[in-house]
Amino acid sequence: MSENFGRSPLSRRGLLRSAGLAGAGVALGSGQALAQGAPDPAITEIQDWNRYLGNGVDKAPYGKPSKHEAHVVRRNVAWLTADTASSINFTPIHALDGIVTPNGVCFERHHAGVAEVDPAKHRLMINGLVDKPLVFTMDDLKRFPGRVNKLYFLECAANGGMEWRGAQLNGCQFTHGMIHNVWYTGIPLKALLDEAGLKTNAKWVMPEGADASAMTRSIPMEKALKDCLVVWAMNGEALRPEQGYPLRIVVPGWEGNMWVKWLRRLEVGDMPWHQREETSKYTDLFADGRSRRFTWIMDAKSVVTNPSPQAPLKHKGPNVLTGLAWSGRGAIKRVDVSIDGGRNWTTARLDGPVLPLSLTRFYLDFDWDGREMMVQSRAMDDTGYVQPTKNELRKVRGVNSIYHNNGIQTWLVRANGETENVEIS
Amino acid sequence: MSENFGRSPLSRRGLLRSAGLAGAGVALGSGQALAQGAPDPAITEIQDWNRYLGNGVDKAPYGKPSKHEAHVVRRNVAWLTADTASSINFTPIHALDGIVTPNGVCFERHHAGVAEVDPAKHRLMINGLVDKPLVFTMDDLKRFPGRVNKLYFLECAANGGMEWRGAQLNGCQFTHGMIHNVWYTGIPLKALLDEAGLKTNAKWVMPEGADASAMTRSIPMEKALKDCLVVWAMNGEALRPEQGYPLRIVVPGWEGNMWVKWLRRLEVGDMPWHQREETSKYTDLFADGRSRRFTWIMDAKSVVTNPSPQAPLKHKGPNVLTGLAWSGRGAIKRVDVSIDGGRNWTTARLDGPVLPLSLTRFYLDFDWDGREMMVQSRAMDDTGYVQPTKNELRKVRGVNSIYHNNGIQTWLVRANGETENVEIS
Repeated sequence: MSENFGRSPLSRRGLLRSAGLAGAGVALGSGQALAQGAPDPAITEIQDWNRYLGNGVDKAPYGKPSKHEAHVVRRNVAWLTADTASSINFTPIHALDGIVTPNGVCFERHHAGVAEVDPAKHRLMINGLVDKPLVFTMDDLKRFPGRVNKLYFLECAANGGMEWRGAQLNGCQFTHGMIHNVWYTGIPLKALLDEAGLKTNAKWVMPEGADASAMTRSIPMEKALKDCLVVWAMNGEALRPEQGYPLRIVVPGWEGNMWVKWLRRLEVGDMPWHQREETSKYTDLFADGRSRRFTWIMDAKSVVTNPSPQAPLKHKGPNVLTGLAWSGRGAIKRVDVSIDGGRNWTTARLDGPVLPLSLTRFYLDFDWDGREMMVQSRAMDDTGYVQPTKNELRKVRGVNSIYHNNGIQTWLVRANGETENVEIS
Repeated sequence: MSENFGRSPLSRRGLLRSAGLAGAGVALGSGQALAQGAPDPAITEIQDWNRYLGNGVDKAPYGKPSKHEAHVVRRNVAWLTADTASSINFTPIHALDGIVTPNGVCFERHHAGVAEVDPAKHRLMINGLVDKPLVFTMDDLKRFPGRVNKLYFLECAANGGMEWRGAQLNGCQFTHGMIHNVWYTGIPLKALLDEAGLKTNAKWVMPEGADASAMTRSIPMEKALKDCLVVWAMNGEALRPEQGYPLRIVVPGWEGNMWVKWLRRLEVGDMPWHQREETSKYTDLFADGRSRRFTWIMDAKSVVTNPSPQAPLKHKGPNVLTGLAWSGRGAIKRVDVSIDGGRNWTTARLDGPVLPLSLTRFYLDFDWDGREMMVQSRAMDDTGYVQPTKNELRKVRGVNSIYHNNGIQTWLVRANGETENVEIS
């Protein structure tokens, strides 16, 4: 059956012709065959990679993506980056699938650049309102009892921050790409604090980074004891330098700025510290000029990643719409999709596992007739919260803030498949 | 509280002295403080990475691990690799954690090297006993309805193959590292076969690779329709070239050789093809010289990854023992650990989520008193199957095979913490 097949171009061509396959094209779920042109040399000719031996295993002890995937990278927006140290780039969510973000493309936000810490010299100190101040080496942490692995999203509070006053950045990488979702390996913060022993007036914890910005934030004790982690690995391997190697704190569901990288110290106190990065920044400025003191939790949000400006539609007929949804308050319960700017909605399929405080992938298979569409997605979480429209959000928040924008995104898909960031007025 | 802390070396030293922390060391779960020596300059001195700005985001659009992690790479064993094309390397499982294997270190096994396929020219053909032969471009597959994401282990049938006649390779990377566990994105094979329409005598499917070995294997239709996938992404991004870019087949729980890479064709037939790679290789040779025709399913297995020869114990007192367990028949139900060569067993803690046909991470926190140990792990799956000892396995299978060795691994931990691959006689 197989011996005279798939080996020589001659027999292959013969078989393809007899089967009527050459130029037949593919039939899809709609049952319609998509007509193609002339016989396809990709099928009728033996390709080079089938003729010659490829590279052996000694070429890449640590592998990297295909050269054909060179476009799947973190990108920055020049005018958003004040200088090389205080910098931002964005996860290419339009070119990824599933729910786990590969370490190589997890977005970055630095306040003093990427600290290059020597793990042998790194220490974590716990001090303040504790019975027994402690210092840990990396080795000490790796032999501390109770190690766990958890999958959590991390979203920068400023994700979508440029969109408060109107549609601006043309691509979900830029409007929604300050997010990633990785597995963390580490120790529950509660276990470390228990080891130090909390004094009765211990109500807050302040993680401090070892980078040149010495990043500090105030975390209420209730959250610290509930689910925060001190971690040294992401997606199975050591934290990447730009994600805090060798140690960071994980604050599930809460704004990314609190997830202090290059973690060197945990101070326990009785009041919040009101550090620079929780006062001059990362506070929501309202229309009347007042600011909200803290906004920690990232509310339910979603975005259609395909189609989107960087991933236009290329074909009429069967297409797969997909995107991501998440909530800092729990698990995603439902995602609805509209193609007419929010007038009619269809419930998308959630691809499991649907985990709390993690990205959730949704799909909607659809046939595109080539008409212009206004594509939106709307997330609901298991607290019953529904993602608002941008205008609903502006009624409450005004347009002065750059943080915590979880409004519904609209993509205009034109008849030629090209897609733009727009707003429904 | 914080304003005079953690900023200047002077106030830092002052506070550390007053808190009695300098040189105090860490206290762990056992309650015993581990005495350290002189004041620790890693705490008492400001480090360089806290003095100077690090690199900005434009340095690494696609990131890579810290230079301090250069040892966490795939490694090969020179004498196992016949030539550069027919090659093997191993996942550094002793240096990873959690259950997801990072794409950069997923082990490789090639029969004709890494085919460098141009995705624009790649095609998937379905032919044979089908109503309607089909050809798919990559674009066609990416808009086919029913896309899913699944986490599955892939284990080479020869994983542990060098150990049939006795303990040989000194490190779990080499004895158990022909395994990885990644999220796959693709289409259920059933959906593609349904689209082509199976004839009533369609009983087998043969995937064929586009590499120079044109790898082919026979898969019974029951398995093909149950849970096989045709996939283009791993851990969220495109398949790596060495894992079959742009397309491979996933055969959950079954031996890795069947997961044909660079997938270009699916032939449907009424009988198995008995191709080279399922006759001259990948068949189990018994003591009496007879071979078992097919051995597809990877039975339950486990290994302690820490401690292990490449990851010796460095400290007495609290330590974390950890490892991996998996079964091609379902989910892991329990893992027991012994430190006395299998006489006494303690049930390890399974770190969730415990998913079927996926690696499962287990932990056992323990205090090491510095005595020699014979460390073993024993997996049980949800069918009730219990991982056998190597000698139990040899009674049934003899020592002629190099495939499907799922016997219990023993590590001898010496009093100095160094660890060796040994066998219980």
